[in-house]
Amino acid sequence: MTGIEYDDFLDSAYEPVETDLICEFRLDPAAGMSMDEAASRVASESSNGTWAPLQAGEDVTDLSAVAFDIDADRALVAYPAALFEAGSLPQILSCIAGNILGMKAVDSIRLMDCEWPASLVEGFRGPQFGSEVRSELLDADGRPITATVPKPKVGLSTDRHVEIGREAWRGGVDLLKDDENLTDQAFNPFEERARRSLAARDELEDETGERKGYLINITAETDEMVRRAEFVADHGGRFVMVDIITTGWAAVQTVREACEELGLAIHAHRAMHAAFDRLDHHGVSMRCLAQFARLAGVDHIHTGTAGLGKLANEDTVGINEWLRSDLHGLNDVLPVASGGLHPGIVDQLLDAVGTNVCVQAGGGIHGHPDGTEAGARALREAVEAHVDGESLERRAETVPELAVALDEWGTETPR
Amino acid sequence: MTGIEYDDFLDSAYEPVETDLICEFRLDPAAGMSMDEAASRVASESSNGTWAPLQAGEDVTDLSAVAFDIDADRALVAYPAALFEAGSLPQILSCIAGNILGMKAVDSIRLMDCEWPASLVEGFRGPQFGSEVRSELLDADGRPITATVPKPKVGLSTDRHVEIGREAWRGGVDLLKDDENLTDQAFNPFEERARRSLAARDELEDETGERKGYLINITAETDEMVRRAEFVADHGGRFVMVDIITTGWAAVQTVREACEELGLAIHAHRAMHAAFDRLDHHGVSMRCLAQFARLAGVDHIHTGTAGLGKLANEDTVGINEWLRSDLHGLNDVLPVASGGLHPGIVDQLLDAVGTNVCVQAGGGIHGHPDGTEAGARALREAVEAHVDGESLERRAETVPELAVALDEWGTETPR
Repeated sequence: MTGIEYDDFLDSAYEPVETDLICEFRLDPAAGMSMDEAASRVASESSNGTWAPLQAGEDVTDLSAVAFDIDADRALVAYPAALFEAGSLPQILSCIAGNILGMKAVDSIRLMDCEWPASLVEGFRGPQFGSEVRSELLDADGRPITATVPKPKVGLSTDRHVEIGREAWRGGVDLLKDDENLTDQAFNPFEERARRSLAARDELEDETGERKGYLINITAETDEMVRRAEFVADHGGRFVMVDIITTGWAAVQTVREACEELGLAIHAHRAMHAAFDRLDHHGVSMRCLAQFARLAGVDHIHTGTAGLGKLANEDTVGINEWLRSDLHGLNDVLPVASGGLHPGIVDQLLDAVGTNVCVQAGGGIHGHPDGTEAGARALREAVEAHVDGESLERRAETVPELAVALDEWGTETPR
Repeated sequence: MTGIEYDDFLDSAYEPVETDLICEFRLDPAAGMSMDEAASRVASESSNGTWAPLQAGEDVTDLSAVAFDIDADRALVAYPAALFEAGSLPQILSCIAGNILGMKAVDSIRLMDCEWPASLVEGFRGPQFGSEVRSELLDADGRPITATVPKPKVGLSTDRHVEIGREAWRGGVDLLKDDENLTDQAFNPFEERARRSLAARDELEDETGERKGYLINITAETDEMVRRAEFVADHGGRFVMVDIITTGWAAVQTVREACEELGLAIHAHRAMHAAFDRLDHHGVSMRCLAQFARLAGVDHIHTGTAGLGKLANEDTVGINEWLRSDLHGLNDVLPVASGGLHPGIVDQLLDAVGTNVCVQAGGGIHGHPDGTEAGARALREAVEAHVDGESLERRAETVPELAVALDEWGTETPR
């Protein structure tokens, strides 16, 4: 190797080998730059290139990436496995979603999809439970899990938060979930909330004869997150919730390590994902974020509502299919639908995303005219009706809480 | 409180109190939505709102945010301090840069700037050294620090990597830096690289009579990062490098905790920042990412090259000014300029960003026709010339390495 030029990173005849990581990028080349030139610069900057020809000597392993399949606005780039540190998401991302996102050679660039070789996947733990939480940690085998976040999402006292949890569990919800903004604040401190909510969960399990769960938000600095996970396990919890984008991948991997020993399932919230994935021509797709999350080993992840609800979504259905697909033997991840849902749109939702999901409603339960318990029953019955192949209207004839919900919200999506 | 409606989150007469966190958003409201409506929804969703009116009872602390200053495309939102968990960047981000980035009420939305109250800043460590690294850890008081990354950025053997470090230090560079893609791979394992590079640094300090530093990349899963930081400290290192966006904020805070004891300065690389900040109408600005980094406590951070070089930059000068400004007593952060730099553009760069910076060149040192040591001398002399008020051409008359560099690259920016 006597020098590296950008066009060394382009080879339309390249045939990927089994150990390559293949990334699909969408590119918008800068003025005066062709797709070929832009794609070869992406391959260069994300592997071993620089802008100046070098005298590198012989003591070098060639770790060049290759742009090999380029069309109007897409390019496939193949990366050799030796470029990556096994099991380190941060290192992998620094290559495939790092400096290249800021290159002047493109006006915008988006990492769309990755094809993961076995050799890279083996470095990661993957999910401990995945969709098996339905039977291993809950009594929801064969149907969607239901979940709710107390509202207002922050500001409730611990007393009231626990009471709302009781009402929701009693009404039929499987999982109580903290809001992403609720961690350890004076109005509702973490340890008191954990202790009392898990005690309430035990009571409601006895009362309803069903296993229940509490997705308590342990999001914090890493060591503190691990301490909180241990506290949850010590008090009989079976789940923790982590806000995986705001904490970041290094911490998610650390929590996953801790949860192996503790036997806790990880519910991944994704606040801030839209900073990466909202626009279709730049950033990192939600599909890829979901892939990173599966490798890191979360058990549930929010993937949106297939266009229903109040938040913008990217390809919920395709992402959910990927989460359930084979990935060199790694467990699957249970998708969570959330954001502006209520019982009246459950049918449309489950038609779109299937039944191996978690359906989470906040305002769509607690905003029920007859309160949380009635709202929880309405949601659970809507889910059961769908599984039974019964229309929501038909089920509402025998479930007054559902009738009231349909009357209140109809079958429209809030905005 | 009997119900929450979106317009409860809008008050043009609101006067912020001293403890409020004030965030500036740029908004592009969805079709049919006014700026007022969009801004109030942002305030709602990022604090305690939901889409459905609620019967919340009395047991609630009001943590509503208020949109209070709205113009054509900007809105200021004030958040009460009690909404936040002190010292937790992930929790703060889940509010101010979380679900709101994906709201259908806006087509795009960008967190532009934050004004941090003392009460929130006090929860964070901030930088341990900041720009004082110039005198406390190096002999670079009063002038820009110079740094270089060996190229090719990955693939060099440890032998060759260490040798390039020697040449760079000998040529006059203060800091050897790992590339962001280089962590612990088979072609150049972390521990061997650390041990041998730090031994070489000791030799070159003796040889040159100047203190030198090695920014070794400890980026990994959190516990592994802390182990690597300890290894570096055990072997006499005074710096570590962390890729703060790909690792994430929870881990950066953890590393900062560890580095307090270990006495290590943290060099923050920012690969992946462009996923957030590249487009001017969506995401999170680099200005805000730099603010988060200062709170978390990094000592150096890359803020771009003020439009020079190969990467797109946002307002390098304004961000650098913020990093040096008073923040309730927190130390400053030393800005790093990097990406396509070479000696011929040092003058323009330092005119733009001032001299309390780190100037880092990779290809612009190692691509020098006479090799790394000559390239390092050319860069160091270019920096010294600027501080001495001498033109590069004038200095080149007595420094042949600089003359060759100017001849090779001129004073243009590569693309």
